[in-house]
Amino acid sequence: MAAEIAEQPQVWGRLLTDGIEPIGAAAARIADRAPRFVLLAGRGTSDHAALYAKYLIEITHALPAGLVSPSTVTVYGARPDLRDVLYIAVSQSGGSPDLVQSMEVARQQSALTLAVTNNAGSALAAAAEIHVDVLAGQERSVAATKSYTAELLALYLLLDRVRGGDGRHAAALPELGTQVLAFDELVRGVAQRYRFAQRLVTTGRGYSYATAREAALKLMETCYLSAQAFSGADLLHGPLAAVDPLVPVLAMVPEGAGGRAMMPVLGRLAERNADVFGIGAAEALELLTGGITLPSGVPEQLSPLLEILPLQQLALHLAIARGEDPDKPRGLQKVTETL
Amino acid sequence: MAAEIAEQPQVWGRLLTDGIEPIGAAAARIADRAPRFVLLAGRGTSDHAALYAKYLIEITHALPAGLVSPSTVTVYGARPDLRDVLYIAVSQSGGSPDLVQSMEVARQQSALTLAVTNNAGSALAAAAEIHVDVLAGQERSVAATKSYTAELLALYLLLDRVRGGDGRHAAALPELGTQVLAFDELVRGVAQRYRFAQRLVTTGRGYSYATAREAALKLMETCYLSAQAFSGADLLHGPLAAVDPLVPVLAMVPEGAGGRAMMPVLGRLAERNADVFGIGAAEALELLTGGITLPSGVPEQLSPLLEILPLQQLALHLAIARGEDPDKPRGLQKVTETL
Repeated sequence: MAAEIAEQPQVWGRLLTDGIEPIGAAAARIADRAPRFVLLAGRGTSDHAALYAKYLIEITHALPAGLVSPSTVTVYGARPDLRDVLYIAVSQSGGSPDLVQSMEVARQQSALTLAVTNNAGSALAAAAEIHVDVLAGQERSVAATKSYTAELLALYLLLDRVRGGDGRHAAALPELGTQVLAFDELVRGVAQRYRFAQRLVTTGRGYSYATAREAALKLMETCYLSAQAFSGADLLHGPLAAVDPLVPVLAMVPEGAGGRAMMPVLGRLAERNADVFGIGAAEALELLTGGITLPSGVPEQLSPLLEILPLQQLALHLAIARGEDPDKPRGLQKVTETL
Repeated sequence: MAAEIAEQPQVWGRLLTDGIEPIGAAAARIADRAPRFVLLAGRGTSDHAALYAKYLIEITHALPAGLVSPSTVTVYGARPDLRDVLYIAVSQSGGSPDLVQSMEVARQQSALTLAVTNNAGSALAAAAEIHVDVLAGQERSVAATKSYTAELLALYLLLDRVRGGDGRHAAALPELGTQVLAFDELVRGVAQRYRFAQRLVTTGRGYSYATAREAALKLMETCYLSAQAFSGADLLHGPLAAVDPLVPVLAMVPEGAGGRAMMPVLGRLAERNADVFGIGAAEALELLTGGITLPSGVPEQLSPLLEILPLQQLALHLAIARGEDPDKPRGLQKVTETL
């Protein structure tokens, strides 16, 4: 897990060179069909990459989008009318039977189908009309790290290209990622603070809500604590009651609109005397218990790639501090097959 | 909270008599426009009613559907192209500014807009082209109960009517609800088992995933424990690692496809020696630590109305057993305003 976390800037560099041409070709086919609605499917970590893409599509493409529940097709036999729909399935392995079957049905039902995977030879890649390879290289850790940010970057580059962009804003990411990964020693210290925590809440809004979800999953997979992710707005609609000074909060506060929209949420958490550790913009962190400042000047759309890095490191170091083996999470295999 | 839980069969009866005509009129306007995509918005409890409706739309109407993130409009200023889209916002109070603003934008962007609220005089009702009143009567408990099942039933009746149904399958619900509520003493005893639980997991698939989400929220709001809801499939993609014999699981196992699809999930939970309490079909409960058997012969689409009842009672009794006041959840107000 540690090796794959460290490898991420290199993976991004590969996508930004070798990946650009095939992603451009895929984008051209999508632009050509001019979809009016986008559906996204994924499980676990890849579901969080799909959530990130949903925000990109709604905000920058002005298209309605939804996350698919594959069970409607696989369990209930739904056969939806998918004309004018772009159907995107995201999966590291490309192997989960429910995603493959949903993809096959989507294609039969006239959707334009796109698979985003880390395995060009997978059943999911074969089932889709278009395949984008995230080029992360073989991922051996059960807790996915490099495949997550590779999925984010591939989806960003693809969607940017569909609307005529050239991906230039992403060019600095490998260098920035290397800078952020250098916080590793700092994060190892931070992990000690959570050594005895049984519960934890993560939160963010907009693009960073995907980070909150993914961070919670990493902590559940490797540290077995009860980590719950809420969008900043949803947190205020009920779950806030369950937050007290014994429930640590990890908050995403990137530069930009999503981070600014977290300010009222941070105020309500302060009223409850919550312990809030932030990841993001320096000025927001001043209001909190502590935090990690990310490089400034990064477009908010790209900040999820950077802000997840210290959280992956946190999951790793906290697992080790608790005597667990992050490379062998109990009860999990690398490829999860659901129907 | 206890009074409003007990009032539900009466609320359903009112919807099935006084509500039928206005719901029929709303359904006719929707059928007339023949939407091709459906978007749904809600916060907290109403988000779970929206999730239930999403399954109904995908499965029984064969239409692609998505849950909206209002922040894309309110925080990021997105102005999506919503031609041919039915936009449904669900809210007890009809008062949250982000839902109202998203609804206004949806209407400007050519969606057919529908508000489902418990307040015909609300800003959300005024912002929408069509309003359906769930007729639950004033709800005073901060933890919503009767408005939730009224929202479920109103959405069921509306969507059934859009495809030409006459709602007859719902006619027995008030009587069935009264039967299920009679488990109150049993549930009070069950609550003692969870007296010292700090964490809890709820799970279900399909329609019942909405129940799992809503049960977790009730337990967080009133008992302040860390209650996490997962669809049965998502649970296997990572969070399963965090389940051990000290993390109780509440599983929805209704008659029908969704309940049957839980069987492999229950098997994996058994491998982890999890303590699983079920709500639903008698034959599924035999495999579990314990459970509450619901009346048989209820169409799976309607089982969420019944299966949430003992879980509302559980949240109430567990709060009281822990010395909390379920009518005054800390840190919450009845109407939550998010931007």
